[in-house]
Amino acid sequence: MSNTHSTIGVIGLGLIGGSLALDLKRRGFAATVLGVEQDPVAGQAALTIGLVDEVVPFADCVDRADIVVVAVPVGAAVKMVPEILDRFQEKGSEQIVIDVCSTKEQICSATKYHPRRGQFVSTHPMAGTEYSGPWAAQPGLFDGRACIFCDTEESSPLAVKQIEELYAVLNMRPLYMRANQHDLHTAYVSHISHVTSFALALTVLDKEKDEKHIFDLASGGFSSTVRLAKSNADMWVPILTQNRENVLHVMDTYIEKMEQFRDAVARIDQDRIRELIQEANKIKRILR
Amino acid sequence: MSNTHSTIGVIGLGLIGGSLALDLKRRGFAATVLGVEQDPVAGQAALTIGLVDEVVPFADCVDRADIVVVAVPVGAAVKMVPEILDRFQEKGSEQIVIDVCSTKEQICSATKYHPRRGQFVSTHPMAGTEYSGPWAAQPGLFDGRACIFCDTEESSPLAVKQIEELYAVLNMRPLYMRANQHDLHTAYVSHISHVTSFALALTVLDKEKDEKHIFDLASGGFSSTVRLAKSNADMWVPILTQNRENVLHVMDTYIEKMEQFRDAVARIDQDRIRELIQEANKIKRILR
Repeated sequence: MSNTHSTIGVIGLGLIGGSLALDLKRRGFAATVLGVEQDPVAGQAALTIGLVDEVVPFADCVDRADIVVVAVPVGAAVKMVPEILDRFQEKGSEQIVIDVCSTKEQICSATKYHPRRGQFVSTHPMAGTEYSGPWAAQPGLFDGRACIFCDTEESSPLAVKQIEELYAVLNMRPLYMRANQHDLHTAYVSHISHVTSFALALTVLDKEKDEKHIFDLASGGFSSTVRLAKSNADMWVPILTQNRENVLHVMDTYIEKMEQFRDAVARIDQDRIRELIQEANKIKRILR
Repeated sequence: MSNTHSTIGVIGLGLIGGSLALDLKRRGFAATVLGVEQDPVAGQAALTIGLVDEVVPFADCVDRADIVVVAVPVGAAVKMVPEILDRFQEKGSEQIVIDVCSTKEQICSATKYHPRRGQFVSTHPMAGTEYSGPWAAQPGLFDGRACIFCDTEESSPLAVKQIEELYAVLNMRPLYMRANQHDLHTAYVSHISHVTSFALALTVLDKEKDEKHIFDLASGGFSSTVRLAKSNADMWVPILTQNRENVLHVMDTYIEKMEQFRDAVARIDQDRIRELIQEANKIKRILR
C-alpha cells in the first residue's frame, strides 16, 4: 500500500470522522475517502460539504478501504470493530481498522483474542469541540494535539507504523499507554469536566424557572465553565457507562471536595476556604 | 466638576482598579489618576506600567479625588466605604465614592443609613480575568460588558448620572437591580463557576500525587472548565463568605445534580444519563 494512493473508509461522519476525512484527503494521505453514515441527512451533508468522495454502505466500505476508521460512539464501536475484523478474516485481507473512541478498555478487551487482533490499532486523537455532526467538522482540528495509542503490543508492528504515519499527517503527537491507564487518566482530565459542566447547566437552568433573567449577568467565566454542557448525549452516554468505575471514583472525590468547600462556607471558616483556594491555585503550574 | 478635568482616585491597583484607571485616563475622563495601594511592590509596578499618575496615601486620595473608586476585596471595601463617607461629611464635600465589588448586599447594608449615603454609588462592572495584580490590568477590559448599578434610589441622582458617564466612557452597558437580587444572580452565574473550578482542580491535583503524568492528556475542554481555579483567594474568600446564603443554596442544588448524575452512572441507567445530558444541553439556548 502506498500512502498517497490509500483508500480510507470513515464510518461515522461526525465532528471527528469528518475532520479526519477532510485533512487526510487535503494533505494527500488518502487518494479516496469513503464514508459510511447511518443518518441520511448527515451523509448527504458530508457529501455536499466535501468531507468524503462517496457515501457507501458499511460492507462496501469495509471491503474497499485500506484503512477503516471507526468514528462512531463507543457503545457502537465496541460491536463494530470485531465485525470488521471478522470480515478481514473471511477475506484473508491485510486491511487495518482503527477506532478513535474516548474510552479504550472495553474496545481493547472486546478484541483481545480475535485472531485478526493484529490488524486493529486502538487510538484516541485528543481533539474536539462541544459541537457534533458533519457540520462541526473542521480542517486542522488535530494539529499539534496528542494522539493516544493503546495496547500497541497487541497490534502488528506494520499496522502500528501505518497508523503512526496517518496521525503524523494530521500533525498529532503520539503517546503510548495501556487502555486501562488511558481510561483512568481521561476520567480525571476529560470525563469529569463534562459531568461538572452538565451539572452546572442543570443547576442554573433549574433556577431560571423562577428567575427569568438569571443569565443576564452570565460572564465569560460562566460560559467557559459550562460550555462542555453542550456536548452530545449519543457520544457521552456510552463514555460515562463504559468508563463507569473510573468516572464514579472521580465523581466521588469531586463531590467530597465540593462538600469540603460547602462546609467551610457554611461555617464561615475563612482560613479553610483560603487554604482550599490556594491549594486549587496550584493548577497554575499545569495550565498555560 | 467637568468630566475632562476630574481627578479620579483608585484604591486598590489590581486587575479591576488598574484597568479602570488606565482607560479613564486614556479616554480623557480623568485628568489625573491618583492610586492607593497597600502593597508597595504593586504600587511601584502600577506607577512603572503607567496605570496611575501618582501613588498617594489613603487620606490624600480621599481628600483630592472628585470620584473615589474602591477596588479592594469586598471584605475590606465594606469597612472602607463608610470611612470615606465619614470623611466627606467632615469636609462637607460633594465628592462621590463608588465600589466595584462582586457582592453587593453587605456593602449596601453597611452604608444604608449613612448621612452621606447619596454620595455613594454601588456598582459591579462585570468584567475580569482569572489573573490579578497591576500586571493583569489591560486596556479595553470593560468594553461591551454589563455594569450593574445597585440600589441607585439610595444615591443622589447627580451622583448616579456622573457614574453612568464614567461607565459610558468604559463602553459598559448599565443594568439596574436591587443588591439582594444581584447577589442571588451572581451566585448562580459566577460564584458557583468558581467553586466548581476550584473543586475540579483539587480533585485532579489530588490524583496527581499517585499518577504523575495525569495532565499529559489534559485537553482544551479541561483547561476551559478549570481555568477559574487560578482565581485569587484574597478576592474570593470574602465573596464566598459575604454571599454565603446564596452560595450555599446554589452549592446544595449543584451537589444534588452531581449526585443524580453519579447515581445514574452507578446504576448504568443509560436513559436517565441521556435525560440529564439532554436537559443540560438546553444551555445552548443561552450560550452563543
